[in-house]
Parts: sequence; C-alpha cells; structure tokens
Amino acid sequence: MSDARDRPATPVTIAYIAESAGVSVPTVSKVINGRSGVAADTRARVEALVNRYGYRKSTPAQRSTTMELVFDELEHMWGVEIIRGVQRVARENRLGVVLTEFGPERSTIRYWIDDTLARRPACVVTVAQLSEEQRNQLRARGIPCVVFDPTMELPDDVPFVGATNWSGGRSATRHLIGLGHRRIATIGGPEHVLCCRARLDGYRAAMDAAGLAMDGGLVVSTALTLEDGYAAALDLLSRPQRPTAIFAGNDLQALGVYRAAKALGLTIPADLSVVGFDDLPIAALVDPPLTTVHQPLAEMAAAATELALALGRGETSQGGLELATSLTVRESTAPPAD
Amino acid sequence: MSDARDRPATPVTIAYIAESAGVSVPTVSKVINGRSGVAADTRARVEALVNRYGYRKSTPAQRSTTMELVFDELEHMWGVEIIRGVQRVARENRLGVVLTEFGPERSTIRYWIDDTLARRPACVVTVAQLSEEQRNQLRARGIPCVVFDPTMELPDDVPFVGATNWSGGRSATRHLIGLGHRRIATIGGPEHVLCCRARLDGYRAAMDAAGLAMDGGLVVSTALTLEDGYAAALDLLSRPQRPTAIFAGNDLQALGVYRAAKALGLTIPADLSVVGFDDLPIAALVDPPLTTVHQPLAEMAAAATELALALGRGETSQGGLELATSLTVRESTAPPAD
Repeated sequence: MSDARDRPATPVTIAYIAESAGVSVPTVSKVINGRSGVAADTRARVEALVNRYGYRKSTPAQRSTTMELVFDELEHMWGVEIIRGVQRVARENRLGVVLTEFGPERSTIRYWIDDTLARRPACVVTVAQLSEEQRNQLRARGIPCVVFDPTMELPDDVPFVGATNWSGGRSATRHLIGLGHRRIATIGGPEHVLCCRARLDGYRAAMDAAGLAMDGGLVVSTALTLEDGYAAALDLLSRPQRPTAIFAGNDLQALGVYRAAKALGLTIPADLSVVGFDDLPIAALVDPPLTTVHQPLAEMAAAATELALALGRGETSQGGLELATSLTVRESTAPPAD
Repeated sequence: MSDARDRPATPVTIAYIAESAGVSVPTVSKVINGRSGVAADTRARVEALVNRYGYRKSTPAQRSTTMELVFDELEHMWGVEIIRGVQRVARENRLGVVLTEFGPERSTIRYWIDDTLARRPACVVTVAQLSEEQRNQLRARGIPCVVFDPTMELPDDVPFVGATNWSGGRSATRHLIGLGHRRIATIGGPEHVLCCRARLDGYRAAMDAAGLAMDGGLVVSTALTLEDGYAAALDLLSRPQRPTAIFAGNDLQALGVYRAAKALGLTIPADLSVVGFDDLPIAALVDPPLTTVHQPLAEMAAAATELALALGRGETSQGGLELATSLTVRESTAPPAD
C-alpha cells in the first residue's frame, strides 16, 4: 500500500482523496482527524487511499502533548525498564505518556484505538501486538508507531527497535567455550518466537566456529519460565554424559537450572556453569550472582520513542534498529571441573 | 483552609470569588480552567479563595477521558504492581492513564502540574511527594488527588491509601515467637519513614505481648537496601549471643541478611530464621523462598484510583484507608535449633 509507484508526483489534497473514494470532503476530514460518524467500510476505504497516496496535512495540527505506550500485559521484570526509557525521552520532549495495558482479556484494545485517534498522540510505542488494521488506522492519521522488540514477523515497512539476540547467544556460548567447556547445552524458548530462534542460532554459530560437534540432545526448546527451565535442566543433568554448562533462553529459565542443580546436589559454578539472558535486576541478587546477556531495555525503549518522534517530524525513514547486547559476567560461570 | 465555618451557606459564584480576590471574572475563570496568563500571586490568591469557599462549577465540564499517575522514581520491584492496579480500574472506567516519572532531577515537576491542569484529568493518584501548593492547585480545579502509601505526615484532609504496616510487623514477629524464637532482632528502615516506624512498633507490640524483654541492641535502623541489610545482619550475627531470627524492614534487607548468613556459614532456616516485608516477586524465587509480609500493592493502587474517582463524583468524603497486609509463610523460617 505504501508503494511509491502508486503515488502521484505531488502531495494529494483532501479533495483528491474524497473524489477517489467517492465520498465527501468532510467525510475524509473526519477520518483523518479521528472523529466518529463514518461507516466502518467507508473509513477503511479512505484510510487505504490516504496510506496509498501518502497524504499529509499541509498545516500541522496543534502540537501533540501526549504519546502512547501500549502493553499486552505488564511484566514484573521487564515493564519498569521499558517505561523508564520511554519516560526519559518523553520528559525531554515534554510529552505526557498515556500508558495502556490491554490486560488479560484484551478488552481494552477495542476502544484504545478510538481513544488514541481522538487523543492525537505524537507517536505510539507498542510492546503489544497490534493488528495490521490498527497499524493502518494510525498510519492514515500520520501517527508514527514503533514496535518494541517484535516477537513475530512484521512487514518490512513497520518500524521497530530490538536487541542483537543472535550476537548475544553467540557471545554467551563463546564465553563458555573460552572457559574450556565442550559439552554445552542450551535451553531455548519457543522457536517461533524470533528472539529465541536468534539466540539459538547464535549458540549454533559459536559451537560451529569452535569445531564442537553439535549434539542434538543438548538443545532443548521450552517455555521461558522458571518451571520449564527446571524441568528441562533436570532432564539434561540426569543423563550419563551430563553437560558441564547450560546457556538458558532467559534469566527465569536460568533460575530453574539453579533449582535443578540444587535438587541434584550439583554446585554452581564448580559442577555446572550457567548463563542467562536479559540481565533482569534479580540476576545480580541471586546466589551465586548470574552471568547473563544484558539487554538494554531502557535504552531500547528510549530509542523506540526517539525513532517514533523522528518519523513524526519527517526527519528519518529508518525502518528499524537493534541495540547491542553485552555479556555481564558474574559468578555462575567457571572452568569445568574435568 | 477547608474549614467549614469559613464557607458561605450556599455555593459561591465566580463573581463572588472575583470580588473577594479583587480581580476580574475572566481571571478567576482562567485559574479555575487551568489556563495560563495569570500572575503567580494572583493565581495563588484565587486558588486559596476557591478552596476556602468550596466553589464548584455548576455545569460539569466535558467528561474527563484521562487520569494521572505520578512517581518520583519508578522502582523495579514495586512499580509494575502499582501500575497494574491503576490500569485495572482505569480500564473499567475507560480512562487513559497518563503516567509521569519525575525522574532523578525532578525537573518534570515544574511543568507536570501545568500540563495536568490543561489535561483536566478525572483524578490524580500520586506515589510521588507533591507539595501542598501543588495539591492546592489540583483542589482548586476540583481534581481529586489520592496519595499512594504516604511515607511522610500529611494534613488530615489529604486522602490516601496505605497498608496495615503495624499489623504486618506484629504478625511477622508473632510468627517467629510462635515457632519458639526468643532472641528476635529487627532491622528496620529509617524511623522518620512512617511505614518503617509502624512496622517497628508492631514488632515491639508482639514482643511485649509475649513478655519478651526488649534488648535494645536487637533493634537496628538502616536504609532499606540489600547492602545495608547485609551490614546490619553481619553485625547482629557476629555477637556472642546472636539472634536466632531476624525480621527485616523489607525484602531487599532480608536478601542482605541471606548474604550475611552465608558469609558467616549460617544456614537459613536451620541456624537463622528470616522474615521480610513486601512480598516482591523475587521473594518466591530466592533460595530458600522467603517468608514475608505481603503488601497488596495492586489492590492498594486500585483502591486509590477508586477512591479518587468516587471523590470526583462527590460520592464519598472518605479521607483514607489502609488495606490489610498478610503473612506469606515460605521456607526461611523454622523453629530455633537451641
């Protein structure tokens, strides 16, 4: 729909869009300004044309004083970092941040889009999964929307900010190899979740580069929870040739590995090295403090907000970026005993 | 200023306030509607009169579609619970939540009040410390403001929602006494912080009731951090007659006690019982899982929002409430060895 070949050479007018859509000028105006009183199919037709022709208001509306931040569900361990990153940039731009959690029933999503269009925010940063229709509604009003750390495949024209998950998986594994480990297992998250697949591929790249034969049995996929990490580690560590190190898909899984090691009478890091992913606040507090791949969540959230605002000012057409992860070495990793 | 004796018998008009303040009607209108262009001293004089006479607009303004939630600094461990509680009630009332973190320099507070008055929110829930002047500015516009878990003394007419800290401190201590402990130490937060003082007094009440002589040396006040909990516990546990149980001022201090016990070769709970306060998500994840006093943060936040909205509708004149804490018994407490 945003294919440049479809666009007239000069910016189109409301009248042009009205004529193309077979509706009146006030109807187009209503759609563009997020007012009600337009039938759903008419609205969709006008939005499609607005997106296709790239219509933008020639006189900017009153400066937006708010922006939107959206979550499906706020998570204890991640939420605050993300919010703080957004707040930092919002403060610099004197924008109020309207925070919405769709919540368990996602009932809010029905009216959030209407209310958001009415609030005319400077931009939207979404940790939630918005539908293509919702993204189109925002785009038709010229409200830039940036996806925070997308977990699913997105069309190429949807801007996003993520982290270098592949590099993170690779450097975690290289750290273990560098300590002398050879039987290194990985417990990954679900493979259809992009960041999990990228972390796993980073692990594979490091193992390959070190000439370590990949033992299929050392790769396990399971949910990103403490309980599933515990079950997977219990299985891996009960084998005759048990791994001397485990790279977990996230910090919660790593805490599950801690619990399994304790249950089996194994000491970390003397008997088993463990690396996590995320660097949640808890990683530094557990015993022993966890070596883990740091995701710069606050910086990612700040970058997502800055990207969205820059898109709104027409200053960039950047599609997306990944911020670097980095390995935080603490006390859960050491050379293997044997 | 809200003394009923000062008020005329019937609601006053804008004209009455303008005459009393020696200013024009449009000036009073500007102040009431949060518009700019009024000198600071004039504004303050009008606000004082509005608050004194209890003026309310006879025709309600357009329904508010947002509310405000304010933090000084968002904390990892507490923030998300509070936000989720507010979101739950906001969703039910279809209100957008404008979230503001004043941040380390508190620079935002300068413009937050102006922007808030312009946004005309349905209510304000504040975890931050607002000044009396700021509370008066909100009150003059009929914007109800409820303080979440106040740490400092507030005037009686400021509505708040807190937790039963005294009862929590008492039940934590009674739990330890019930297990057979006699030398029970407490590491408390700063005594000028009301909730810390209340927890300490709850400890004292339980010790007194059990006829346990209070050993002054068993009571330590320090900052509510892991590091300060560690230092305090190291000192307490290095004494010849060491305590067999420690009630910490919060969960972070309790984790410091864990670290001190480990450093001294003491096992929890065999050699030392530990009770925390807050029941942060981390409390269930540490080893051993921590017995702690649960603060219903999400419920407190929901109650604060409901109270603020009820005040806005004129449905209540309730000044404040404390929600019950409850003891969550996990694995860090056991009968003493001796």
